[in-house]
Amino acid sequence: MDKKIFVYDTTLRDGMQGVGSHFTIEDKKRITALLDSLGVPFIECGAPGFNPKDQQFFEYLESHPLRNSKAVAFGSTCRADVPCEEDANLQALINCFAEYVCIFGKSSEFQAKAILGISKEKNLEIIRRSIEYLRKNGKHVFYDAEHFFDGYADDREYAVSTIKVAKEAGAELICLCDTRGAAMPEEIKAVFESDEIKECGPVGIHAHNDIGFAAINTIEAARHGAEFVQVTLMGIGERCGNADFFTVIPTMKLKLGMDCVSNECISEITQSYYKAADLLNIKAYAREPYVGRDAFSHKGGIHIDGVLKDSRTYEHINPEAVGNHRRSVLSEVSGKAAVISKIKKIMPGVEISSEDAEKVVMALKNMELEGFQYEGADASFEILVRKTLGLSKEFFRLDSYRVTSVNAKSSAIVDVLVGDEEAVTSADGNGPVDALDSSLRKALSKFYPGISNMHLVDYKVRVLDSKRGTASKVRVLIESTDGKHNWVTVGMSEDIIEASKMALLDSHEYLLYSLM
Amino acid sequence: MDKKIFVYDTTLRDGMQGVGSHFTIEDKKRITALLDSLGVPFIECGAPGFNPKDQQFFEYLESHPLRNSKAVAFGSTCRADVPCEEDANLQALINCFAEYVCIFGKSSEFQAKAILGISKEKNLEIIRRSIEYLRKNGKHVFYDAEHFFDGYADDREYAVSTIKVAKEAGAELICLCDTRGAAMPEEIKAVFESDEIKECGPVGIHAHNDIGFAAINTIEAARHGAEFVQVTLMGIGERCGNADFFTVIPTMKLKLGMDCVSNECISEITQSYYKAADLLNIKAYAREPYVGRDAFSHKGGIHIDGVLKDSRTYEHINPEAVGNHRRSVLSEVSGKAAVISKIKKIMPGVEISSEDAEKVVMALKNMELEGFQYEGADASFEILVRKTLGLSKEFFRLDSYRVTSVNAKSSAIVDVLVGDEEAVTSADGNGPVDALDSSLRKALSKFYPGISNMHLVDYKVRVLDSKRGTASKVRVLIESTDGKHNWVTVGMSEDIIEASKMALLDSHEYLLYSLM
Repeated sequence: MDKKIFVYDTTLRDGMQGVGSHFTIEDKKRITALLDSLGVPFIECGAPGFNPKDQQFFEYLESHPLRNSKAVAFGSTCRADVPCEEDANLQALINCFAEYVCIFGKSSEFQAKAILGISKEKNLEIIRRSIEYLRKNGKHVFYDAEHFFDGYADDREYAVSTIKVAKEAGAELICLCDTRGAAMPEEIKAVFESDEIKECGPVGIHAHNDIGFAAINTIEAARHGAEFVQVTLMGIGERCGNADFFTVIPTMKLKLGMDCVSNECISEITQSYYKAADLLNIKAYAREPYVGRDAFSHKGGIHIDGVLKDSRTYEHINPEAVGNHRRSVLSEVSGKAAVISKIKKIMPGVEISSEDAEKVVMALKNMELEGFQYEGADASFEILVRKTLGLSKEFFRLDSYRVTSVNAKSSAIVDVLVGDEEAVTSADGNGPVDALDSSLRKALSKFYPGISNMHLVDYKVRVLDSKRGTASKVRVLIESTDGKHNWVTVGMSEDIIEASKMALLDSHEYLLYSLM
Repeated sequence: MDKKIFVYDTTLRDGMQGVGSHFTIEDKKRITALLDSLGVPFIECGAPGFNPKDQQFFEYLESHPLRNSKAVAFGSTCRADVPCEEDANLQALINCFAEYVCIFGKSSEFQAKAILGISKEKNLEIIRRSIEYLRKNGKHVFYDAEHFFDGYADDREYAVSTIKVAKEAGAELICLCDTRGAAMPEEIKAVFESDEIKECGPVGIHAHNDIGFAAINTIEAARHGAEFVQVTLMGIGERCGNADFFTVIPTMKLKLGMDCVSNECISEITQSYYKAADLLNIKAYAREPYVGRDAFSHKGGIHIDGVLKDSRTYEHINPEAVGNHRRSVLSEVSGKAAVISKIKKIMPGVEISSEDAEKVVMALKNMELEGFQYEGADASFEILVRKTLGLSKEFFRLDSYRVTSVNAKSSAIVDVLVGDEEAVTSADGNGPVDALDSSLRKALSKFYPGISNMHLVDYKVRVLDSKRGTASKVRVLIESTDGKHNWVTVGMSEDIIEASKMALLDSHEYLLYSLM
């Protein structure tokens, strides 16, 4: 049977301590609902003793029980100088409805002295006293051994004594924390393999990413004795963040055969990643292992050629296993095979010889030398292919245009020729590009009524060589729709209006081909 | 003595194969100059046999020698069915000026058959033949053993025979590649520790990040026998990317005491990271280990308190060791203190009451609600502060402007008032913003001669809510210089010309304050 490891999420506690994490109560509800639907056994939902907003959230949870998960309330050991009955933080935990509470304490003399100003003996006492008190008041208690690996390196015996005390006092789970995030994987392994640690079990890991090892450290712990792993969605948390659910879970499940989430959870984990990005208001990271947009994107010609022959050549798993999919990206580094498969995809009926493909590769390379970029601009690529292979048709010609911006009001005039007929139209707009788009559409609609259904849905600008100031080249990407499908075109020039015009013309032309 | 490990950069080769990496020749020059200044011994500058742009770049490098680094030209083993003399790729390498070339070849029967359609014997033959031919033609040859770890797991003996052949044929460095990026650290360790691998040395590592282990795998290799590491700036590369220079080098140098870069390089590595982000046109990643904005940002109250008492409590190194610095992220209630310290920094002479700070906080919140963003736009922030606190002066007023773009030619007319005097000027430009900038400068120079020394050095556009197409709001950031120092201003509007105008006006105003 697969080794059972359970997930303990701390997105709403340590994750909240990440720069840029600002969650309203509504946000917290949605994040908790996502974690609950992922089947995470424990969700650390906040610290009612530290934060009134968290207290409010626990009140909500009391009346809205979770389906699959248990809510955990977070806090700390008591103050050394007051009885537990008078400790505001412990009282907040007791008054909170959550049956499960997690408190953290210090694992070294240095930490106890530097942060709490107490002796190492006193530190042991407050750990014991706090846990016993919470147990006596009916709580399940988990203990986070903060700075455990630093403490262990410093004075092994003392560090171990802190968790022994926690265990004796009634802690049901002990989490060893790499609080500063700089432990090496072999330190983690050695600790989890040692008998004295196993005796304090069930133990788990809480890893930070300060040297980029949160994922490997979490996995090393899981392989060598940890029974649970603390993670956050997208790895948010203090400083460089925590171990990322979306990075460590697929490796544990698919590579190491650990029983940590359901099969359904893993086969939809890419979708969950985008949901999380949305809820956390963080841009999805294209290069995220397994779930990122580019995790299975192939760009080098040899790579594209390889995956076409056998996907195992350049993919470590089938992207579908995590709900992701393969992408081939066209560019100057992709070769003939990529171009042929791309041409076939966008123009299924067309016969392409190897010589034709060669011509397209050359045209592509020349355009990219100018600064064009067809990654993602499939519609402009189709137009380039048509022109290169003599398959194009002149639907119209833009004879001239004039765009004027006067004190924040923009308008455009275009002069368009279709065959021998001419149309001169003008339009105002929200900015010069909008004006140009409107007047162009107005002119073309006279000849091609189908074009009036089309509109722009996205507009992106990138300044190339931005160090040249306003004289830099500008690349414009435009996404258009006819209500049924979307397409993207590109334009490039030193003049942003000219670059936008190019992308607009390609967009209209592309639609006209599809209406043929 | 510290263990010597050298850096081999492949930003301009594997990095180029990352989605979104699109470098002009100018970009490549600047990236190479940065790597050269970092003292990286080898820079893989491209594949002249695959890409005409790379060929052009090597021509440039021939006439512009590097100071510290050697340029390496990349290619592949020859085609199996032609003699080396007729192999276009090998010929391109021979015709390239670079003394150092690196070719890649297959490490398993599966790869040889699936990708090249050749037998495993034939594969050994082309490895030998290609390297011998390049050596005979006077090149130093490095060999990239593609898919080495997969091959080794599959058929150890054969995988090792491929690099033995490479070594015998004259390869001076052998790089073992985890091409699919899914090797586990202990596999890496086992391979580098084995005697048969050491015999083929010097060996190095090329790691990908498909399961998030590029950094640890690179470091495990370096600790167990690798003499060099292949990295890219910011970890760009195929799919999830390569090992990131900025993550692995600080750990190797500062944690493991390896001699891999100079002390100066490491103490300025944060600055280099921002330079790289700029050159690669990638947003700097706030949570990047060591060099990210938040690598030493503390938000949790206990953490902030801890580092104030002793920074070692929540920091694994002194941020200054990598040229970074500590940030405390202040909560909503202490927002005023943050604003006061910011105001004092940009306007040292000004007395600010708590009430003044409150006013600025409100003004800032209102502007940010509109979509303005002052992070990085200090000059616009200063102007906002002056206006809010009644410390501003009207140097000039732009009464009206008209910008016209006709068939890729742009010009602008401005009407400026200074006191009772009026100046109407016009100018052409590379695009509408350049035209507006030129005419505005022309008008103002009549009254303020100091302004003629100023020019724009950077221009950035971000479309907000881009899903609204060309009617979206646009944020423009402009960096200006007077030759002595630089400042950044921001503008925002639905109209890109209007947004640019706002940023231009702030920029001129800021300079006029400094000339007072």
